[in-house]
Amino acid sequence: MMVTICEVGPRDGLQNLPLTFPVEERIRLIAGLAAAGLRSIEAVSMVSPSRVPQMAGAEEVLAGLPELPGVHLSALVLNLRGAERALATRVQGLRFAVVASDTFCRRNQGMSSEDSVAEFARAAEAARGAGRDITAVVATAYGCPFEGEVPPDRVAGMVAALVAAGADRIVLADTIGVAVPGDIRRLHRHVAPTLQGRPWGVHLHNTRNTGYANLSAALELGATVVDASIGGLGGCPFAPRATGNIATEDVNYLMQREGIATGLDHDRLSALVEDLAGRVPDKITGQLSRAGWFGERAAS
Amino acid sequence: MMVTICEVGPRDGLQNLPLTFPVEERIRLIAGLAAAGLRSIEAVSMVSPSRVPQMAGAEEVLAGLPELPGVHLSALVLNLRGAERALATRVQGLRFAVVASDTFCRRNQGMSSEDSVAEFARAAEAARGAGRDITAVVATAYGCPFEGEVPPDRVAGMVAALVAAGADRIVLADTIGVAVPGDIRRLHRHVAPTLQGRPWGVHLHNTRNTGYANLSAALELGATVVDASIGGLGGCPFAPRATGNIATEDVNYLMQREGIATGLDHDRLSALVEDLAGRVPDKITGQLSRAGWFGERAAS
Repeated sequence: MMVTICEVGPRDGLQNLPLTFPVEERIRLIAGLAAAGLRSIEAVSMVSPSRVPQMAGAEEVLAGLPELPGVHLSALVLNLRGAERALATRVQGLRFAVVASDTFCRRNQGMSSEDSVAEFARAAEAARGAGRDITAVVATAYGCPFEGEVPPDRVAGMVAALVAAGADRIVLADTIGVAVPGDIRRLHRHVAPTLQGRPWGVHLHNTRNTGYANLSAALELGATVVDASIGGLGGCPFAPRATGNIATEDVNYLMQREGIATGLDHDRLSALVEDLAGRVPDKITGQLSRAGWFGERAAS
Repeated sequence: MMVTICEVGPRDGLQNLPLTFPVEERIRLIAGLAAAGLRSIEAVSMVSPSRVPQMAGAEEVLAGLPELPGVHLSALVLNLRGAERALATRVQGLRFAVVASDTFCRRNQGMSSEDSVAEFARAAEAARGAGRDITAVVATAYGCPFEGEVPPDRVAGMVAALVAAGADRIVLADTIGVAVPGDIRRLHRHVAPTLQGRPWGVHLHNTRNTGYANLSAALELGATVVDASIGGLGGCPFAPRATGNIATEDVNYLMQREGIATGLDHDRLSALVEDLAGRVPDKITGQLSRAGWFGERAAS
């Protein structure tokens, strides 16, 4: 089974830094990630630059990128307006964030959880009309900083609606990094019957050192989409301590050592991490660039 | 099934710091760990103070501790001489480190891997004679910094010899933090038939962010001993980048959220981590004291 690592560093990573990377640097990072073997990259976010200045200039980033054959570029969007912006660019896919918990949804995207699903349906229709694919990313699927535990059947109900509305794949996000492997398994039991055969995956934060254990559980359950961020950059504006997506270079180590092909080049990933470490040294949570590889490497 | 968390911070943690904690502080730390609910503490190491100055004064530390009812205190030992030193103190148990890879064994304890098993047998006899228990900790069981991969059947052969020599339990150590969950499962398949019913466990380093995934795999396989270090302090003198045992406070989160009783008090553990963070801020790899608990807490 092929597992796709979706690189979210240029979006989730950079978005949460205390400094703003200029467009040129973002272009260089994305091109470097593609050169390291990544075949799916969430390159930009279509949000208001006044709310998230780190993500300003999405169109310029996309226009400035060279041809990247075989690389699926996507944009994160939160509403129909963002989807329409994205569809006017070269991205092949939208990643639309809906939110499982109402309070978080209202604060993050200014609408109810139910309305975010309805908005997803409109974006899915627009994407289909433009010949692009759309991924539904279900934020706070494993817990909410405001509401606490999120009932798995609520998430399953949303997933059923998202699939009915045309989601090409579903990504369950542990936005604030609270899940343990048992939660990954429990939610999967609820959600699996609603997927109708759609691929599913996980977006994990390592806030409580459970991210890689959760990854391992998800892979065992057949997840085929894994979000990861170079260096482990990342966070969540409403969960200030939710630092750190699982790191692309560490995901690559775990998967390759488990015998799962990734197509990623450890040395090139490490070089990118070293570059980032020069800019934001205390934000690097990935460990492979420091600790080094162990054992045989898969051909890349 | 009861799982025993063996706290190794006072030994593996402090031993690898760039500064030496005075005896009084070590006593306070051990007493604090007991107050936080730990029922098994590797309190000291019986090694030469000229080689490991951080561990000097083991006898003073043990003599200075108050009565700790219900707490199993142990000493790490590498040879018969260390075992005899430990048996002259109040510790209830020895933790004897043998090494699965020859090169590492010669550098760390100045004898061959085979000789370390023979030395273990002598220490086990002495422990039995003194009415104490003995744990065999098999270092580099998942990989060696000098020899690379360690064949699982070599480890299984050692475990069979250690059990025959009187080991009360076996701890398989990923000394340099290279294992992935598949390695934990593979080694367990080899080792399980040799255990003769003895309890087994793991000693894990999070050097490549796989430590907690490995913990999760080991718990699923029925491990009943889990080494952990407060704050995630720890390392390995011959693996300079092998920073960080899995952290007691993060192990506590993962286990409790999985429904496995630990008896540990999150707030007390966090307070201990905060104290340590005042002394060695850049050595704290545990995340719970910073990120905070999520969800219900088990009664402690």
